[in-house]
Amino acid sequence: MGPPAPPLLLLLLPVLAPGAAPAVHPAFLRVLGSLLAPPPQPTPRPTGAQGYSVRYFHQKVNHFGFSDAKTFKQRYLIADRYWKKDGGSILFYTGNEGDIVWFSNNTGFMWDVAAELKAMLVFAEHRYYGESLPFGEESFKDSKHMNFLTSEQALVDFVELIKHLKKTIPGAQNQPVIAIGGSYGGMLAAWLRMKYPHVVVGALAASAPIWQFEDLVPCGMFMKIVTADFKKSGPNCSQAIRKSWEAINRLAGSGSGLLWLSETFHLCSPLTSDDIARLKEWISETWVNLAMVNYPYECNFLQPLPAWPIKVVCQYFKDTNTSESQLVENVFQALNVYYNYSGQTKCLNMSETTTRNLGSVGWGYQACTEMVMPFCTNGIDDMFEPESWDFKKFSNECYKQWGVRPRPSWINTIYGGRNISAHSNIIFSNGDLDPWYGGGVTRNVSDTLVAVFIRDAAHHLDLRAAHAQDTREVRAARRQEVGYMKQWIREFRRAAAPRGER
Amino acid sequence: MGPPAPPLLLLLLPVLAPGAAPAVHPAFLRVLGSLLAPPPQPTPRPTGAQGYSVRYFHQKVNHFGFSDAKTFKQRYLIADRYWKKDGGSILFYTGNEGDIVWFSNNTGFMWDVAAELKAMLVFAEHRYYGESLPFGEESFKDSKHMNFLTSEQALVDFVELIKHLKKTIPGAQNQPVIAIGGSYGGMLAAWLRMKYPHVVVGALAASAPIWQFEDLVPCGMFMKIVTADFKKSGPNCSQAIRKSWEAINRLAGSGSGLLWLSETFHLCSPLTSDDIARLKEWISETWVNLAMVNYPYECNFLQPLPAWPIKVVCQYFKDTNTSESQLVENVFQALNVYYNYSGQTKCLNMSETTTRNLGSVGWGYQACTEMVMPFCTNGIDDMFEPESWDFKKFSNECYKQWGVRPRPSWINTIYGGRNISAHSNIIFSNGDLDPWYGGGVTRNVSDTLVAVFIRDAAHHLDLRAAHAQDTREVRAARRQEVGYMKQWIREFRRAAAPRGER
Repeated sequence: MGPPAPPLLLLLLPVLAPGAAPAVHPAFLRVLGSLLAPPPQPTPRPTGAQGYSVRYFHQKVNHFGFSDAKTFKQRYLIADRYWKKDGGSILFYTGNEGDIVWFSNNTGFMWDVAAELKAMLVFAEHRYYGESLPFGEESFKDSKHMNFLTSEQALVDFVELIKHLKKTIPGAQNQPVIAIGGSYGGMLAAWLRMKYPHVVVGALAASAPIWQFEDLVPCGMFMKIVTADFKKSGPNCSQAIRKSWEAINRLAGSGSGLLWLSETFHLCSPLTSDDIARLKEWISETWVNLAMVNYPYECNFLQPLPAWPIKVVCQYFKDTNTSESQLVENVFQALNVYYNYSGQTKCLNMSETTTRNLGSVGWGYQACTEMVMPFCTNGIDDMFEPESWDFKKFSNECYKQWGVRPRPSWINTIYGGRNISAHSNIIFSNGDLDPWYGGGVTRNVSDTLVAVFIRDAAHHLDLRAAHAQDTREVRAARRQEVGYMKQWIREFRRAAAPRGER
Repeated sequence: MGPPAPPLLLLLLPVLAPGAAPAVHPAFLRVLGSLLAPPPQPTPRPTGAQGYSVRYFHQKVNHFGFSDAKTFKQRYLIADRYWKKDGGSILFYTGNEGDIVWFSNNTGFMWDVAAELKAMLVFAEHRYYGESLPFGEESFKDSKHMNFLTSEQALVDFVELIKHLKKTIPGAQNQPVIAIGGSYGGMLAAWLRMKYPHVVVGALAASAPIWQFEDLVPCGMFMKIVTADFKKSGPNCSQAIRKSWEAINRLAGSGSGLLWLSETFHLCSPLTSDDIARLKEWISETWVNLAMVNYPYECNFLQPLPAWPIKVVCQYFKDTNTSESQLVENVFQALNVYYNYSGQTKCLNMSETTTRNLGSVGWGYQACTEMVMPFCTNGIDDMFEPESWDFKKFSNECYKQWGVRPRPSWINTIYGGRNISAHSNIIFSNGDLDPWYGGGVTRNVSDTLVAVFIRDAAHHLDLRAAHAQDTREVRAARRQEVGYMKQWIREFRRAAAPRGER
């Protein structure tokens, strides 16, 4: 067992070196938040992507009160090349914690199925992200300005936007709308259907960890799945990583060890003993990110990466008979796969898994208010240093940073926790490589709340554009999803038809 | 056609004499609002009513934001005499716009069925009514203080309270909860089930006009039903009332006529020509109130009244061959049935149908924000002076009074309007004498969204205590309602049982 480590996930990091990041913020937001980092190079359009228009819609800043009539401009993208007024449909992407253009570029599935479903595509940006800032540059000024950053407000934004589109686009009024989203956006898609079933006929919630709250799943599950990914990607892989923490700790104990670590990891700034906690966290986050983007083909989502990147990483850990310093050198080689696949990186920067765009600020706040996801490790079932979930500490850090207290039960209180069987028409898709499946719905809840569990798939792989190296499993999953969507559309039309025609 | 009359319903009354009411407020709130007037004499406990405890629960003032942690005490009543931990249930009254003790005294149905359902009864007060004032005496100070008076916040109050009760009362955790409410409370019961089906297994929404919004029903329907009640309660009855407005107008044209009117109506203060609009409105409201409480037995709900009060009223309009002054005298006799059945009233007060408790202020605000119900009359299909629905004028009056603008589409936007078929387990009960059935659900929407339409029943008669003079119809309706409730309870238990026992 290593020495008491600083909190690993979801906890604020008082140890963060000043200036290392624009604001001290929960590590967890880097985990999910890293999904929103604008990729270093512009992402090529997915195969199916066509042109779209960028539009704006005036939303009330506060849907749930009347004393202030202030509005802001919500950005959305719209693509109607394949849309048919008769017999068509509307696929509505429920934007999550980042720039909507980036999400639209990484949701090739929607572009790929547009023709088949004669669908208009709409990508709606989530308030407080991208350009959709309720108070412009002041949006993140203080808790008063951030007070309207909640999932409930975001859902009403979607409802109002859909209503507006149906009203203003000729031929859209009587069309079925399907919500689609991934990760937090998948949660929003599911919740949109649960709370506003009159607005969307169904939802595809990809990799949506709607049960990653309170004690609905063990707090250790997430990191256990990360570990399993490494375990099955190469012999000795997870064991070597588990061992690496103690090696790092030992080396960090001396000044010469610190220097050696800085050089071995090719860090841009040399380590001090205060940085060791952050170093280990940065490495942990890298393993987590690799688990999320362990895709079957070379691509650039969070970083440019080879196909099955964990397999590539695990190449460096095969040897069971290494010295501590060799092990640490291997860790560097592994990190280098993630941070330097392009071979262009001169040195590694520990703030690099973190996203430095507005999205991270927004998600940091959301994690400290509604989106309280408990995480923990024990070093036995997982390959990380043991760290328990300490809500009190978490709450205090949130208060210190944002002036707000998290409500750990809130999401289950309003969205129902495991008790969702009264709802209908939601596909919960998950991949068995994605650590988020632990908090997801992986078994059918009812005939109309269905789980699509995809072997060998990482974080919402099904939402990505079709690819020549796609597995048979993800192809089948996408067909299954389209099948459900077509069924919802048929049912919608049947219900809408005059009685005689049914 | 009479002269242009001031707005009849739902519009602010600038003509109201200063001091006649504590605040200028929408006439409409007197219609629905009169339901909350504390009865002039204490109402005797309904047959089934047993003892209860009064308790308080700390609610967040703003459930939908985190910048302010302020809480207030929500009052609720709890009665567990017949409650059984095993095999029992919880009946939860979703309090509406008034004092919860008064509602509990007028919801005898719940007391009557408590033993049969082994039920704990809970009556939850609605925020901003009764004792449940978020900012104490300052609650109605301005639009900032009233900003948390919405149905959405009220629903979360109920959700949080139910969660608290289940957590803190031993044996309550795994019991089915059924929401019950009447009028606006019935709307809340239905919406509670729609939005939070994980919290309540079903809802009895009695006389809940969930469709009295926008153009879902014709704006004239409400007054047409009032008129029909009078038409069938006696020959010439509605015709005479229709004629009476012109008679009043003509008499009001001269000083001597005004004096005569004041004397004939036994008014406490003599009329000026400025009061005529208010006089006619007061009379109209009386006819509306009579339609709502046209119960089959003598009782004291809004006022002490005889059985079938409209029949009694219509006695005075039988004669088709009356002079204008005779007709007006007959109107007084009819009003006297409503205001002086006890024979104790010395003079009639035109502010008397209005409720002067806090409830009216709260409902006035709600009608000016979320609860925008369009009403109109044409004097042809109804017995009232013609008055169109003028939203713009209404909005301006709301702004003048409360500093807020109403959102006429909001309720349909979030609760779905007529498109509610995705929901389940709601009983919508209505009576064919109740003008509110016009905006209610009077036909089955699906197998589990069922309508109970009760012949010869006025406003949520089914929620009142059983009575010897109850009609066969209302008795049958109550049995049907209990039948559905038992079915929900059975289904809940079946779903909760271990798989082997199902």
